[in-house]
Amino acid sequence: MINRPFSSSVLEAAVDAFASLPGIGRKTALRLVLHLLRQEDSHVENFGKLLTTLKQDIHYCTVCHNISDTDVCSICQDSSRDRTKLCVVENILDVMAIENTMQYNGLYHILGGVISPMDGIGPADLEIASLIDRVKSGEFSEVIFALSPTMEGDTTAFFISRQLSGTNVRLSVIARGIAVGNSLEYADELSLGRSIVNRTKME
Amino acid sequence: MINRPFSSSVLEAAVDAFASLPGIGRKTALRLVLHLLRQEDSHVENFGKLLTTLKQDIHYCTVCHNISDTDVCSICQDSSRDRTKLCVVENILDVMAIENTMQYNGLYHILGGVISPMDGIGPADLEIASLIDRVKSGEFSEVIFALSPTMEGDTTAFFISRQLSGTNVRLSVIARGIAVGNSLEYADELSLGRSIVNRTKME
Repeated sequence: MINRPFSSSVLEAAVDAFASLPGIGRKTALRLVLHLLRQEDSHVENFGKLLTTLKQDIHYCTVCHNISDTDVCSICQDSSRDRTKLCVVENILDVMAIENTMQYNGLYHILGGVISPMDGIGPADLEIASLIDRVKSGEFSEVIFALSPTMEGDTTAFFISRQLSGTNVRLSVIARGIAVGNSLEYADELSLGRSIVNRTKME
Repeated sequence: MINRPFSSSVLEAAVDAFASLPGIGRKTALRLVLHLLRQEDSHVENFGKLLTTLKQDIHYCTVCHNISDTDVCSICQDSSRDRTKLCVVENILDVMAIENTMQYNGLYHILGGVISPMDGIGPADLEIASLIDRVKSGEFSEVIFALSPTMEGDTTAFFISRQLSGTNVRLSVIARGIAVGNSLEYADELSLGRSIVNRTKME
């Protein structure tokens, strides 16, 4: 239904912009634009101005590469955290998810993605070199990989671990298995298999 | 997970802006912002500029109030269309849907919504006065209401039809009934009831 030419080129450009976002089709994009047209002028204008300068205004922590208002983010500055543990994640969403578990008190290193030749993302596009530098400085006793359980995530962890061989740092990977609350019969075979191989002693 | 304070106020403002859109929660909003941060600077900048001037750049047809690049939209200008029929709809999405059926060749009038006291939308907020003027000019022999089959849609059609009583124009409403391809047992009672009351002669 949305393939017909639009009655307005401005409308079409706005729909195209929203439809370029992941998970938003042209029909949803049109709904979003029509919604914005019903809002106050100032609201839409501020939204636009915010996006226009978004990439200049966003700063990254110079240590862990998380998004931050300051040069060094609040987690990296926090002296009450365990500064001997480093958790390697893909993005800020993962940091927030792990922080919310309240089970980790170490530091983070945000790669900005995983190695994915299909999408043209190589090691040089990620914050891998700075990770190696951080670890080789000798600050950390353990590096924990918390990457997606995909081929790309595994490849990335393997690539980094190869570069860290020879250091005394303990490398670990977050446990994979059956999610809490899931019944066995609905678990995928790979996760179930891993949960058997990596079984833990009952306490 | 997304209720924790963000590590950056710019990020938070961007997430708030996207999360103000209908159907987009804070988690999805954060994903969209992270996606934009991975795009080319110029792409994000153009997106922002487009939104900043969106409300000034969008023009409405002075006749039917559809979104248009020109003062009078292409449908209103089209002399090959049946200019004695006027279809009353809520918004441009409805025009596109009806155009795609290829079953209607008349003109349109876009109200910009329906009367909804709950949302603070009264007759004065909609293009009702201009509709009455258009119909009373005597151009049209039939006005077809194609509004949502809701209380608000029915109220709006009733409100307009009252104001048009006394004119010679035929008022009609699009048929409501069982959707093509739907089986009877899953149809709601109201639609099934209407489809029986408004049964048509077999051809």
